[in-house]
Amino acid sequence: MKIKLMRYTAEPERVVAMAARLCYSPIGASELEETMSDKQVQNLVRKIVELGHWSTLEHVTFTFAAEGISRVLTHQLVRHRIASYSQQSQRYVSEHDFEYIVPPTIARNAQAKEKFLALMDNVRDTYNALTEMGIPKEDARYSLANATETKIVMTFNARSLLNFFSLRCCNRAQWEIRMMANLMLKEVKKVAPLLFKNAGPDCVSKGICSEGKMTCGEFENMIKLREE
Amino acid sequence: MKIKLMRYTAEPERVVAMAARLCYSPIGASELEETMSDKQVQNLVRKIVELGHWSTLEHVTFTFAAEGISRVLTHQLVRHRIASYSQQSQRYVSEHDFEYIVPPTIARNAQAKEKFLALMDNVRDTYNALTEMGIPKEDARYSLANATETKIVMTFNARSLLNFFSLRCCNRAQWEIRMMANLMLKEVKKVAPLLFKNAGPDCVSKGICSEGKMTCGEFENMIKLREE
Amino acid sequence: MKIKLMRYTAEPERVVAMAARLCYSPIGASELEETMSDKQVQNLVRKIVELGHWSTLEHVTFTFAAEGISRVLTHQLVRHRIASYSQQSQRYVSEHDFEYIVPPTIARNAQAKEKFLALMDNVRDTYNALTEMGIPKEDARYSLANATETKIVMTFNARSLLNFFSLRCCNRAQWEIRMMANLMLKEVKKVAPLLFKNAGPDCVSKGICSEGKMTCGEFENMIKLREE
Amino acid sequence: MKIKLMRYTAEPERVVAMAARLCYSPIGASELEETMSDKQVQNLVRKIVELGHWSTLEHVTFTFAAEGISRVLTHQLVRHRIASYSQQSQRYVSEHDFEYIVPPTIARNAQAKEKFLALMDNVRDTYNALTEMGIPKEDARYSLANATETKIVMTFNARSLLNFFSLRCCNRAQWEIRMMANLMLKEVKKVAPLLFKNAGPDCVSKGICSEGKMTCGEFENMIKLREE
Repeated sequence: MKIKLMRYTAEPERVVAMAARLCYSPIGASELEETMSDKQVQNLVRKIVELGHWSTLEHVTFTFAAEGISRVLTHQLVRHRIASYSQQSQRYVSEHDFEYIVPPTIARNAQAKEKFLALMDNVRDTYNALTEMGIPKEDARYSLANATETKIVMTFNARSLLNFFSLRCCNRAQWEIRMMANLMLKEVKKVAPLLFKNAGPDCVSKGICSEGKMTCGEFENMIKLREE
Repeated sequence: MKIKLMRYTAEPERVVAMAARLCYSPIGASELEETMSDKQVQNLVRKIVELGHWSTLEHVTFTFAAEGISRVLTHQLVRHRIASYSQQSQRYVSEHDFEYIVPPTIARNAQAKEKFLALMDNVRDTYNALTEMGIPKEDARYSLANATETKIVMTFNARSLLNFFSLRCCNRAQWEIRMMANLMLKEVKKVAPLLFKNAGPDCVSKGICSEGKMTCGEFENMIKLREE
Repeated sequence: MKIKLMRYTAEPERVVAMAARLCYSPIGASELEETMSDKQVQNLVRKIVELGHWSTLEHVTFTFAAEGISRVLTHQLVRHRIASYSQQSQRYVSEHDFEYIVPPTIARNAQAKEKFLALMDNVRDTYNALTEMGIPKEDARYSLANATETKIVMTFNARSLLNFFSLRCCNRAQWEIRMMANLMLKEVKKVAPLLFKNAGPDCVSKGICSEGKMTCGEFENMIKLREE
Repeated sequence: MKIKLMRYTAEPERVVAMAARLCYSPIGASELEETMSDKQVQNLVRKIVELGHWSTLEHVTFTFAAEGISRVLTHQLVRHRIASYSQQSQRYVSEHDFEYIVPPTIARNAQAKEKFLALMDNVRDTYNALTEMGIPKEDARYSLANATETKIVMTFNARSLLNFFSLRCCNRAQWEIRMMANLMLKEVKKVAPLLFKNAGPDCVSKGICSEGKMTCGEFENMIKLREE
């Protein structure tokens, strides 16, 4: 899995601080932006995140390129509707030599892995045979597995990202999308550390658990992490 | 494929007409609704659709249940973000006895069909073997094919539906989602004939083609249809 | 202020229960709907609301007509983007005899009220003079006050409504939109009591306060209410 | 009126081109971005805009600060739901010395102007008297006029902007929001000339008129402009 942060709004925390100050100030946005010190920006962003003035976070956006992920992952991903996606098309791109994702539980079980790899070989043979018989790619694709690798470009604003992280960084989330969410979070923390300081599952960000504390052994650890 | 219209806003055309009249009238909505004759409703809806006062169409919604469709279809479907979805989960529902969709180009080619069915048998065997080895359903699912049958409930408002029909009833759309779009259109025409009178691909609804007239032999026929 | 619930999805709680069960069941939606008993529906809806399976609430929508509200209110209202609006237009509808909303703090202060009513008279005279001079309605409207009465039709799904109630039923919300939110909540509770059982400000629905407990004297009362 | 483009996605046309190529290519996004020449980017963007592959335009966003605009304008503006707003609050910011917008039809009619300015004086006196009597700002604001100046920060993606321009650059749009839309269009054309080449009312962008050709004298001129 490869996640790259390709674009993001310049000086994201300054933008958020400026938008928030505008709401409560008689002065205009461009003047506000120019005259706020770095210290003021930081203090304001801390307050915005603490108080939950989330709408101001929508002014900054983040564009990621993801590769080495499965269509199991993307079928979940694109259910997040406040975001934009461009995905490699199985109608137009040939999958005659597709790669695929092997879930860890299968990878570490020799017998399961053998079964799984044999199936992937069969899928590839079938797909190639179908296309050679003249079946269009858009129909041959019905034979492809959920495991098939795909590539996607996606753009989220910071508010929608926080929601994404709260759901998908959770230990209860499906492992592959959780792995991606964690990599995305790592990237945005580099460029907007205060905005995403408490980002993550609800236990980290809010000290509560929406999934039932019993279902994950990590609740206590997470709460400790949050308190440090 | 089975499409059922499970719910829709009562008297949808009356609601749209009432909302439209409210914008241009000193009188309130409930009074408007009660005093408009059926004739007035019909005339107004015709005008709304002709002039494109689309926002009024958002007040009426349609909930469909779909079965016998593939995950090829739903991965496209859920890209329509102005709609709501509840889909059968492959994390929680066992697919040990899954059904699957065979594309017509494969179904009518004996050799292709044989290859495809053999693969589906292999997929089923592999999935079952994996789950029996203790691989969780959410990981065994990586072996499942795009063709696997799924079930979904979806709710669209009339404006978003018109957009859906314009893209997915088009001859250039992928055959399975086009088939579903046509079935959905047939259902809503029964209960809101004037609202959906011109619904369909752009050639039918607007007399233009956004896909390049060369790519589909139907443009002239569609235009004729529209003129009738 | 007059709020009327004009339309809502038939048997809303059954729809939500059916959508939720579909996610975890091998059986299709229409069969699920037909075979679920009222008791099963109720139990499931309780669980959905408790666990926060919110996406299933999007399948049911509610259309309200509101009158006797000010444009102060609607300028806030239309900031809720996951909803649909049709509003009486000040470009097209003459306001020569407009009504207006008097805030309670002004209504109960004789001196303030006198000032305010005198201004409203002046606004009416000015508006009428301008239109008589041939100034178009869309420009004469610049003279109208925020207090001017307006009418609106709006449609929300149940999930978006819950978010609306959490923000606008709060004691910290502006009084007029809070009054409307409370009236809307009263209406939907009649037709979907379980769905909206805990609806309201965060102190009622979640036992937390996002506005800082100091700012409203009601936190303890609300928590008690919730526990009853 | 002052419109400033405060932020936009770096190299917006390169991002759009990269996202579009990803859909049809076996190669990943970061490689695509690095290896595309400026010429390739330009050719691809021209094609995207011509064919209407609009979803790729969502990956680039534009943040504007607007000042010297009325609340007549912003009440229309915030009806565009696929965008983000932070607006100066009349609950928290004192309007004791508010500025206001005078519509041109009033400004050039001496008698109308006099009436209008007199009313604005009365509004200011009333607002100040009310707040001095202890009426909270959030209630005194009911006396303020639609004409009152406001400030807003807004973020649109390029696709939503195109829709905004098609509706609001039209001669049939209300003059103030049309003026703002035209200033915004001028700004984005500087930084993404190919993306916004045909942006504007439907007569310019598509050669059609959704408002009825009779209602605006400009249709023929616009069509000529488009053909040049």
